[in-house]
Amino acid sequence: MQVLSSYAAGQWQEGQGEGAPLENPTTGEIVARTGTAGIDMRAVVEHAREVGGPALRRMTFAERAAMLKGLSAAIHEAREELIDMGAVNGGNTRGDAKFDIDGATGTLAAYASFGKRLGDRPFLTDGDGMQLGRTARFWGQHVRVPRRGVAVHINAFNFPAWGMMEKAACALLAGVPVIEKPGTSTALIAWRVAQIVVESGLVPEGAFQFLCGSAGDLLDQLDGQDCVAFTGSAATGMKIKGHENLVRHNVRVNVEADSINAAVLAPDVDSGDEAFGLFVGNVALDMCQKAGQKCTAVRRVLVPSDRVDEVKAELMAELGRHPQGEPQEKGTRLGPVAHSQAHADVREGIGRLSEVADVITGGAEPPRDGCFVSPTLLVARDADAGILHELEVFGPVATIIPYDGSAEHAVDLVNRGEGGLVVSAYSNDASWSESFVLGVAPYHGRVWMGSDRMAEQALPPGMVLPGLVHGGPGRAGGGEELGALRGLEFYTQRTAIQGFKSFVDGTFGAPAE
Amino acid sequence: MQVLSSYAAGQWQEGQGEGAPLENPTTGEIVARTGTAGIDMRAVVEHAREVGGPALRRMTFAERAAMLKGLSAAIHEAREELIDMGAVNGGNTRGDAKFDIDGATGTLAAYASFGKRLGDRPFLTDGDGMQLGRTARFWGQHVRVPRRGVAVHINAFNFPAWGMMEKAACALLAGVPVIEKPGTSTALIAWRVAQIVVESGLVPEGAFQFLCGSAGDLLDQLDGQDCVAFTGSAATGMKIKGHENLVRHNVRVNVEADSINAAVLAPDVDSGDEAFGLFVGNVALDMCQKAGQKCTAVRRVLVPSDRVDEVKAELMAELGRHPQGEPQEKGTRLGPVAHSQAHADVREGIGRLSEVADVITGGAEPPRDGCFVSPTLLVARDADAGILHELEVFGPVATIIPYDGSAEHAVDLVNRGEGGLVVSAYSNDASWSESFVLGVAPYHGRVWMGSDRMAEQALPPGMVLPGLVHGGPGRAGGGEELGALRGLEFYTQRTAIQGFKSFVDGTFGAPAE
Repeated sequence: MQVLSSYAAGQWQEGQGEGAPLENPTTGEIVARTGTAGIDMRAVVEHAREVGGPALRRMTFAERAAMLKGLSAAIHEAREELIDMGAVNGGNTRGDAKFDIDGATGTLAAYASFGKRLGDRPFLTDGDGMQLGRTARFWGQHVRVPRRGVAVHINAFNFPAWGMMEKAACALLAGVPVIEKPGTSTALIAWRVAQIVVESGLVPEGAFQFLCGSAGDLLDQLDGQDCVAFTGSAATGMKIKGHENLVRHNVRVNVEADSINAAVLAPDVDSGDEAFGLFVGNVALDMCQKAGQKCTAVRRVLVPSDRVDEVKAELMAELGRHPQGEPQEKGTRLGPVAHSQAHADVREGIGRLSEVADVITGGAEPPRDGCFVSPTLLVARDADAGILHELEVFGPVATIIPYDGSAEHAVDLVNRGEGGLVVSAYSNDASWSESFVLGVAPYHGRVWMGSDRMAEQALPPGMVLPGLVHGGPGRAGGGEELGALRGLEFYTQRTAIQGFKSFVDGTFGAPAE
Repeated sequence: MQVLSSYAAGQWQEGQGEGAPLENPTTGEIVARTGTAGIDMRAVVEHAREVGGPALRRMTFAERAAMLKGLSAAIHEAREELIDMGAVNGGNTRGDAKFDIDGATGTLAAYASFGKRLGDRPFLTDGDGMQLGRTARFWGQHVRVPRRGVAVHINAFNFPAWGMMEKAACALLAGVPVIEKPGTSTALIAWRVAQIVVESGLVPEGAFQFLCGSAGDLLDQLDGQDCVAFTGSAATGMKIKGHENLVRHNVRVNVEADSINAAVLAPDVDSGDEAFGLFVGNVALDMCQKAGQKCTAVRRVLVPSDRVDEVKAELMAELGRHPQGEPQEKGTRLGPVAHSQAHADVREGIGRLSEVADVITGGAEPPRDGCFVSPTLLVARDADAGILHELEVFGPVATIIPYDGSAEHAVDLVNRGEGGLVVSAYSNDASWSESFVLGVAPYHGRVWMGSDRMAEQALPPGMVLPGLVHGGPGRAGGGEELGALRGLEFYTQRTAIQGFKSFVDGTFGAPAE
């Protein structure tokens, strides 16, 4: 039995005891075990603070950017090996695994690019300087400086590579050492990526640690210069946000939680329009990619009432182009969900949805052995049923919700999700689109508008891009990540500096172009 | 007995029962009573959401800015009346009361000025647009939109006018209705300001409500579009940040809490330098203004070991220029602390400090009847004593802490405060200053550097300016307010919009200059 170890306080350490099992969701076989029992979490945090942080901050922003570029290349070299691991441990098809792994390397490369222009000063300027006194003699300038603590990243099971490295990219570029904890159930890829990161020698010792299993009492070790970024369930997000030690020390917490993302077909889009094809293709993709286990995947599909039959037929046809099967088989575009518990949860969720919606295809019964779920499309009997807007079924499942075609009704239904990561809509009508965007924007971190003229070039709404913010208010956790340099805000302290102009502006003002 | 009422759900309402007493700290007399018992907090929140928010958001940013300008003028008209109230209820000298009231009107006027250039679109652009696809056809743009909830402001007793209006200025300009809860013990000025705001007719009904007393179950009514900004003790800050309903719904929370602010004399500054005079003047001002009850006031005074006797003598002389007495008497520059409980707390705090520091002048014994505290200067026997860096004595009290004169030692001692709102230092040595700033910046929201060449024009470090951020990490609460348009971030949702370039850029891009 393979045992995955943690990279903690400068050495690879195996946890004590039996550890938690990692399964192959296609076969049910246990492929590895891992745990952190016995690892001294205080030593981990101190190692980051005392060794990793200072070393990282001795590098310039430009040097840290170059480090990210090197990590991107090092991980990319292991791409085929990682793709195989994604099938064995996560049930990822080849396409699913690439989405995760290339997401990791792409985000690292993007942050390398964002960072290389940041220069060699140990801070970033924030906005313009300003006169504070009667004359320019008394001057003010905001800067951002790296916080002196550690970044604890508690990652989700669905993106073991991307989830870890998109968080790490922002923190490391900012100058803050990371402690990465993967979702235990799919930790194999994360563990191999962590090995590559450590073995690369690119990251200063102590700036990257990896805890393969439970976080233990890690959160009790943190204080006001530290931060925690979490991706996962709302229930765990709440526990972290309300954690007594984190609250006591005003530790920064960022949460990405559940979100009941919607896709909306506007009434102006006809079946012959490119936007219609894009809509059908993207909804089916979101249902099948990663077996629907994306925090950005569409759960609610709003369709004008008189178009429901047409959309049902088109979606069914499109789903037919996503063959389900063993993830490693060529041609498979829909694999199993990641593990047995996820399988049970999805099947239960389908059961709950079917109380208020008709199952058109698929359903809770597994189509074969292993953690497989048939792509399941439902049509809501009552658009106002609460569960449609509250329950995230984390699998290849979506529900068509009829609406009256107005932007207002769409906005009202979409916002009943009480906060989402992304909402997409398909329209060639600028007026409908503008009303829709303004209505949904307060409730979403990202609004994706599909239309004929961008269809050919569009990256799908479920894809998180490093240049755009990722996160959402309310149910989505209230967090924000990425967004190019915006992603560094969480890891830096914004400070206003006041004093004599030639000192403040000369030392801390924007460098001459 | 005057009873202060609340402006809640469209009407002035008196709370049921006896209410809490508001005292005159000079005489001990009860000057008013107030309470919120029986006020329906759900109705208050719904009134803000359903009436105030929509009305406010129908106004443009420029119109809301004009509203703030009008409020500034309306409050300024009542300046003399408010100054009198500050003496009766808060123990404010004329100068203290002006600092509070002019701070309120000045901040409103500043935000009117920041806002008038924001134009008439219902959102703000955030950064530049960016190409997302192979060509510019697929485009992204970040915007900020007003959140659709309410802003609950729980204010501190020390700045009843400024504290309420600096928070309200940011929220109202952003387009978010406010529910203001003053510190009950000094609510008289806040209540009168609230009357002026309501009677002005400038603010749409429902966009400004005022709860004069306990917040009751207000926080249980909030959800993911709402936010809470609190200023006050760390203990209450913790209760709010960990509040179950706020955690559950990812309600945004901003906390400004205690902070053990430091002022540092660098070794290069001689007694004849202008910077030395500025140092002595500012430390004494911070001790005496508002009787030391400023969250930004200096508590720790770091002085090179060989300069302690000189600084002691100069500070004693300077304190002599701040006569203590009845706040309404002409010439009084040091009044009582705000109420009996504050009086007891400060005296207890002096007792605790005196366990590790020698009392040079002042002490815990009240110099006269009423809530008076003598200006109390101590010299630490051991610079490393924990209590010096942990205990905020919220009165006219400061402790000189000897250090070795190096920027490194100063940084180390200052940062033991574990996060502060502001730190000030006095030096004409650019190299010392740069090392100091970079060392303390991660732990502070504001760094104020005094030197000969800005001395004549300097506004003191204890003064919060609307153009600079106010807040600090760790012990200071981890919050951030003000900072010109940065202050709107808390009240808005940042959203990335993706789509066809001519739609996204044309509708949401930066307007043509």
